[in-house]
Amino acid sequence: MTEKIRIGLIGAGRMGATFAHHLAFTVTECDFAAVADPNPDAAGQVAARYGASAHYADYRALLDRADIQAVVIASPTHTHSEVIQAAAAAGKHIFSEKPLALTLAACDTAIAAAERANVKLQLGFMRRFDSAYVAAKQQIDSGEIGTVAMLKFVGRDPSRPALEFARRANSGGLIMDLAIHDFDLARWLTGSEVERVYSEGACLVFPELKEVGDIDNAVVTLKFANGAVGSVDASRNAVYGYDVRAEIIGSKGSLMIGKFQQTPLWVMTPNRVAHDTVPFFMERFADAYAAEIRDFIRCIVEDKPPSVSGLDGRAATVIGLAATRSLDESRPVALSEITSKP
Amino acid sequence: MTEKIRIGLIGAGRMGATFAHHLAFTVTECDFAAVADPNPDAAGQVAARYGASAHYADYRALLDRADIQAVVIASPTHTHSEVIQAAAAAGKHIFSEKPLALTLAACDTAIAAAERANVKLQLGFMRRFDSAYVAAKQQIDSGEIGTVAMLKFVGRDPSRPALEFARRANSGGLIMDLAIHDFDLARWLTGSEVERVYSEGACLVFPELKEVGDIDNAVVTLKFANGAVGSVDASRNAVYGYDVRAEIIGSKGSLMIGKFQQTPLWVMTPNRVAHDTVPFFMERFADAYAAEIRDFIRCIVEDKPPSVSGLDGRAATVIGLAATRSLDESRPVALSEITSKP
Amino acid sequence: MTEKIRIGLIGAGRMGATFAHHLAFTVTECDFAAVADPNPDAAGQVAARYGASAHYADYRALLDRADIQAVVIASPTHTHSEVIQAAAAAGKHIFSEKPLALTLAACDTAIAAAERANVKLQLGFMRRFDSAYVAAKQQIDSGEIGTVAMLKFVGRDPSRPALEFARRANSGGLIMDLAIHDFDLARWLTGSEVERVYSEGACLVFPELKEVGDIDNAVVTLKFANGAVGSVDASRNAVYGYDVRAEIIGSKGSLMIGKFQQTPLWVMTPNRVAHDTVPFFMERFADAYAAEIRDFIRCIVEDKPPSVSGLDGRAATVIGLAATRSLDESRPVALSEITSKP
Amino acid sequence: MTEKIRIGLIGAGRMGATFAHHLAFTVTECDFAAVADPNPDAAGQVAARYGASAHYADYRALLDRADIQAVVIASPTHTHSEVIQAAAAAGKHIFSEKPLALTLAACDTAIAAAERANVKLQLGFMRRFDSAYVAAKQQIDSGEIGTVAMLKFVGRDPSRPALEFARRANSGGLIMDLAIHDFDLARWLTGSEVERVYSEGACLVFPELKEVGDIDNAVVTLKFANGAVGSVDASRNAVYGYDVRAEIIGSKGSLMIGKFQQTPLWVMTPNRVAHDTVPFFMERFADAYAAEIRDFIRCIVEDKPPSVSGLDGRAATVIGLAATRSLDESRPVALSEITSKP
Repeated sequence: MTEKIRIGLIGAGRMGATFAHHLAFTVTECDFAAVADPNPDAAGQVAARYGASAHYADYRALLDRADIQAVVIASPTHTHSEVIQAAAAAGKHIFSEKPLALTLAACDTAIAAAERANVKLQLGFMRRFDSAYVAAKQQIDSGEIGTVAMLKFVGRDPSRPALEFARRANSGGLIMDLAIHDFDLARWLTGSEVERVYSEGACLVFPELKEVGDIDNAVVTLKFANGAVGSVDASRNAVYGYDVRAEIIGSKGSLMIGKFQQTPLWVMTPNRVAHDTVPFFMERFADAYAAEIRDFIRCIVEDKPPSVSGLDGRAATVIGLAATRSLDESRPVALSEITSKP
Repeated sequence: MTEKIRIGLIGAGRMGATFAHHLAFTVTECDFAAVADPNPDAAGQVAARYGASAHYADYRALLDRADIQAVVIASPTHTHSEVIQAAAAAGKHIFSEKPLALTLAACDTAIAAAERANVKLQLGFMRRFDSAYVAAKQQIDSGEIGTVAMLKFVGRDPSRPALEFARRANSGGLIMDLAIHDFDLARWLTGSEVERVYSEGACLVFPELKEVGDIDNAVVTLKFANGAVGSVDASRNAVYGYDVRAEIIGSKGSLMIGKFQQTPLWVMTPNRVAHDTVPFFMERFADAYAAEIRDFIRCIVEDKPPSVSGLDGRAATVIGLAATRSLDESRPVALSEITSKP
Repeated sequence: MTEKIRIGLIGAGRMGATFAHHLAFTVTECDFAAVADPNPDAAGQVAARYGASAHYADYRALLDRADIQAVVIASPTHTHSEVIQAAAAAGKHIFSEKPLALTLAACDTAIAAAERANVKLQLGFMRRFDSAYVAAKQQIDSGEIGTVAMLKFVGRDPSRPALEFARRANSGGLIMDLAIHDFDLARWLTGSEVERVYSEGACLVFPELKEVGDIDNAVVTLKFANGAVGSVDASRNAVYGYDVRAEIIGSKGSLMIGKFQQTPLWVMTPNRVAHDTVPFFMERFADAYAAEIRDFIRCIVEDKPPSVSGLDGRAATVIGLAATRSLDESRPVALSEITSKP
Repeated sequence: MTEKIRIGLIGAGRMGATFAHHLAFTVTECDFAAVADPNPDAAGQVAARYGASAHYADYRALLDRADIQAVVIASPTHTHSEVIQAAAAAGKHIFSEKPLALTLAACDTAIAAAERANVKLQLGFMRRFDSAYVAAKQQIDSGEIGTVAMLKFVGRDPSRPALEFARRANSGGLIMDLAIHDFDLARWLTGSEVERVYSEGACLVFPELKEVGDIDNAVVTLKFANGAVGSVDASRNAVYGYDVRAEIIGSKGSLMIGKFQQTPLWVMTPNRVAHDTVPFFMERFADAYAAEIRDFIRCIVEDKPPSVSGLDGRAATVIGLAATRSLDESRPVALSEITSKP
């Protein structure tokens, strides 16, 4: 019998707790050993709830433990690159929440560090592990819908984030924060790179977002290298509920992904049928979070390349940077503008 | 070119106007010539709106016209048998709204009259002409769902009828009035006769119905000659909207028929998705009414047997009578009890 | 009692027959008197089927009839402006199928002709009369969904048109032909003008379209004067069925319009539930065509301004021209570029 | 901090493993200590996978452990009563899978044993913990749908059970095995007892079931003490997928519960939209199994009466016995016939 992978968690916030649950209970091939968070209460509670025997305020203390083979990084976005570099230097395999980083330079440094250390680096684009997207990918790859000509993505949050979070220096802005999932899906589903993007945005629902340089609604057009077209919309005011959808329009058929209902109950009152909606991403993608962590552990156990690589993380960031520049400059932006800068 | 069938309408109420519309506008092979109704205003308005050149207070005057070849009967249920007999005696082909009659004797007299006169007698079970039921019938007949083992029918009105209408002597009661459509569908879809029925009823929503001998909700169980089982529910309090559905459960698959939404609009407010419902039977079966009238005219033009015969009308009435007796006597009733009575 | 409006139809093709049906059977305030079509068989058949007493090969002969007060124009798009001018010169009220014209000059000439002649000019954007769009407009206007921040439109045909039709000189191209309905809806639903558009297109499914200067899929981004954003997608390869949808995302709620199912039947075979789709626009918008013709006749009878004016037709054409130029030049195009040209 | 409840599991089959998962991972207030199963491999595997430190071939060995405070019983139905009596005698709190027992005597003995020992006895009607049924119950109790007049239940399995399982002496037959869940829901949702039942059955799809005294489809009519009516259908040939639904028709509105789709993906090929179905009860009620076990542990920790009592289990069995007798004797059966027998 193989040894269990001993694993540490960096970041004990909302997403950290989700990962801890799966490390402790879902994936049998790993041993959830330690958690680090600058907030010692958070770290302690996650350790207690999910059975980690140690917790640290400084993630470097966790990385110092020679018995820990891998880490899951769920720290704030702007720290991802730094933590990845430190973990790689410590020889740990790395699973990092999305996005990889908010700048191309930070992406490249992180990727290079993992390569140098010869450790695995997997990115947390969990939608690739959602049963609906997985089934859609299979349908596309099997030729069921023929040539893909158009892709439509919807990614809408039910409420405004905290203003400090929304500030572009922190989240990268609406497009970088929300649409980046769809940028990753666009590449994965088509197997083609995006070449050019164009963005339009609105700030009509939460005017206070303007003060931190953000918007509340955006439409991003995608032009793919293989000739296909696409669009991604992002919104902070899907007040009805969390709303993530995709449509893939092919020459022989189309696919539609989406979930509008959480509880399978319809309430029928005079002249109306009503049901509830999906509250938030944790409910929508609960199984996908389990699956991506399981996949990461198996990638270590079986020594396979990561399913979602550092380069995948970089590519999504590049699209996000181009789409954000397009928004700022009201013109189409070729991705080569972002990647070829000196 | 063939001559158009000259046709008269008996009954200028709500259903009469619907038939007039189709006789005037939908079916090109007929000429809507006259309408009769004891209410001369109603007759006059229908004649004017739909271009009939004559209208009568007494339907016998209409039947006296030698140039009229066929009639559509949309008079009150308790008059069907009498009017059918008169029309048959006058040599007119006959389309009669459902039910054929509320007693077995009245059914038999009407059928015998049509046979004696050698005129066509077609019954208005319009659901047999609804695209969904037609497609279901084709699926069953083609073997797509294998052997049919169970059938479920729902037939619910959004509101209580007038008390005088509900009185059993007039409408036959809830089961006879509403469920008779499903009794007809049950025979047609399975190609098997019902052998035994059992009914339970409730009167909890409109207690005033008790005073006229009626109930507001009923469940009728069906046992078919071929061994299949079924159930029909009927309700007066589908306050959300008109609700007619069916399920046919077979050995290789199932079929489900139903329509909950009239307008293809979803209104999404916090934590809820809502849409409207189907208002009433005229909206739900608008196309089916057109199709059944067209079918009747073609049956005359092409001299084919009627798609829904007098015997079909009688058979549905027999099930209704048995189900009503079961309700009254709280025991299963074999259909042979109804048909074999001296 | 008011006199009936005597009306003529110009164009006896597929849409012409649809209008003839409503002129003959649906709208009681008019008298369908004549039809003109260069194809005398088509004109004759429509006249016979819908009871027009005259038919002409040359539409000018129809316009010469002094007893005819109004015309419905369903001739090919590139003839609209010319026929409108002739009809206006003859003093007829005019209902014209969309689009008004394919050039700004042709729009302006047509509008000026109708103004000069003091006749009504109504455009056939029938979706404004579809119950779902009407209900959506009411929800928006009543404030139910708050401030509209984003609008998404889908307009997809199930198959490729004839190549000669698709040629840009004839149809105006994919965007002009399909998306123009949504350009009109965008203005109508928001009450705001579009200021800037950006288009990307693909030609991957029907490469033969390239030879006539057309594409098979497009995404058009809209930026509105009031700050909102939007997008319209158009496709020729919705092979599953005709697919027209809209979403309106507001600050307090959202609306979704769409219809995926024609027959309310679900076929449930192992591991799968399936239903049919909407075949084509005539099935989807059957009631809307009736409603727009009725509205036009009432606009004459009651001497009201047309619900969809010549200027509305022009505005949609301007958006179409800008979006097509954006496609050609791969850059955002301000609508002022189109309207301010010398 | 309170001590954790030390708990043992009796039965390491499919349901046993499900309970083990929740005892080990979902409910933090308990300590999954031991598992017993006559099949030592099954017991060993469940112990290893879910971290129980001991496993036994004989459940009595588990009951002998004084440190174990409670047991979950997932052994075959016909052993429930015997195991419950032994567990009660050993002073353990008891959670037992449904049904309580297949005879009234066995129910009564089990209930009396638990009462005598003053231990909690909770029954595994997990649907009471499903979010949709819970929400429906809240809607009913809050008066949202007014007076409940009719209830419809659907309970259909996608395939035939093993013949030996189906044998009436083992499973109790189709009605006892499948419909018993709905009998429990009927009582719970209405707060009223069932007074009389009538059953019809068919055996058309799996004729081999006749040889073990079973059928493949059944319709059971329910008459409630409060005057309401209801029906339950049960089938072994929902070949499309696991299908459990309910409708509650009230005077002010209705509720509909059901889930037809597992993966939120629609595949749209020419003229068809299709999606998958729910595979089986473990997928449909995964969360409900977690919730019922959590509820049981809390009921011990907080010393509350069980949410689903032994008497509830007995009441459902009584309805099942009456419905099965009705099937055998083709007549309505009052529940008093079952309960009043000497």
